Amino acid sequence: MSGAGIRPGETRIDLPEADDARLRFIGVIRTPYATRADCPRQGREDGPECRIVLNPEWAPALAGLEDVARIEVLYWLDQSRRDLVTQAPHGRPQPTGTFSLRSPVRPNPIGLSRVALVRVEGAEVVVRGLDFVDGTPLLDIKPLRCPEAP
Amino acid sequence: MSGAGIRPGETRIDLPEADDARLRFIGVIRTPYATRADCPRQGREDGPECRIVLNPEWAPALAGLEDVARIEVLYWLDQSRRDLVTQAPHGRPQPTGTFSLRSPVRPNPIGLSRVALVRVEGAEVVVRGLDFVDGTPLLDIKPLRCPEAP
Repeated sequence: MSGAGIRPGETRIDLPEADDARLRFIGVIRTPYATRADCPRQGREDGPECRIVLNPEWAPALAGLEDVARIEVLYWLDQSRRDLVTQAPHGRPQPTGTFSLRSPVRPNPIGLSRVALVRVEGAEVVVRGLDFVDGTPLLDIKPLRCPEAP
Repeated sequence: MSGAGIRPGETRIDLPEADDARLRFIGVIRTPYATRADCPRQGREDGPECRIVLNPEWAPALAGLEDVARIEVLYWLDQSRRDLVTQAPHGRPQPTGTFSLRSPVRPNPIGLSRVALVRVEGAEVVVRGLDFVDGTPLLDIKPLRCPEAP
């Protein structure tokens, strides 16, 4: 990717094509947010319901999840560039290293949200607290341990 | 992968080769644990120091991380099978869905730990609280927000 679209203070690096491991999308996440501009800055646990829709072959893997109060959802931020080592987000006084930010721009754009589980319905999991665009591909669901780690 | 090595109550599914997205390993994680048998069941924040060693091109992406107390580390559990929808871990009375477990066996074996940051040294991040084998490939580091989400 070229240097197009980067801001003053941002630094990109040249990288070979990524192919150290390969992911499988296992479902899709339905949220009320059609575009990034529609998304809240941070999800809230009293936000609107969102639906994690698993591909049918993974439905049996939800067994037992109904007893879990909070989960971690991992997803793929497929719109994100992956070659910035420093970034200059709006509202930050100076450029910052990618690993000091939760920006979707990262070498492996894996998104991670901790959310409240509302209910499981067949191959779908209803949650509150997501903050990204409708149609985002799902990578994983993990239960939060009880008692939750600090 | 065949049904070899699965336990009673475990269910596997046939899957095409995974290739919906591709990952880049950006470093390696050094822990005191040479094999899975050596690993603690769960990392502790007063456990031994571990070192996240970034590939040199990613070192500038650590700028600002020294001010962060706790981070999330994402890594690739490259020894894990990926085709089980239910699992029967030792000590569980009945088989459980993969998404109700934090087992490394999952469709996308991305490991996730929240750990205390001890210090940043050049391209290395020293932490406490990891619980997996030495040499695990690194995928991402994310700061925990302050104040931390509940």
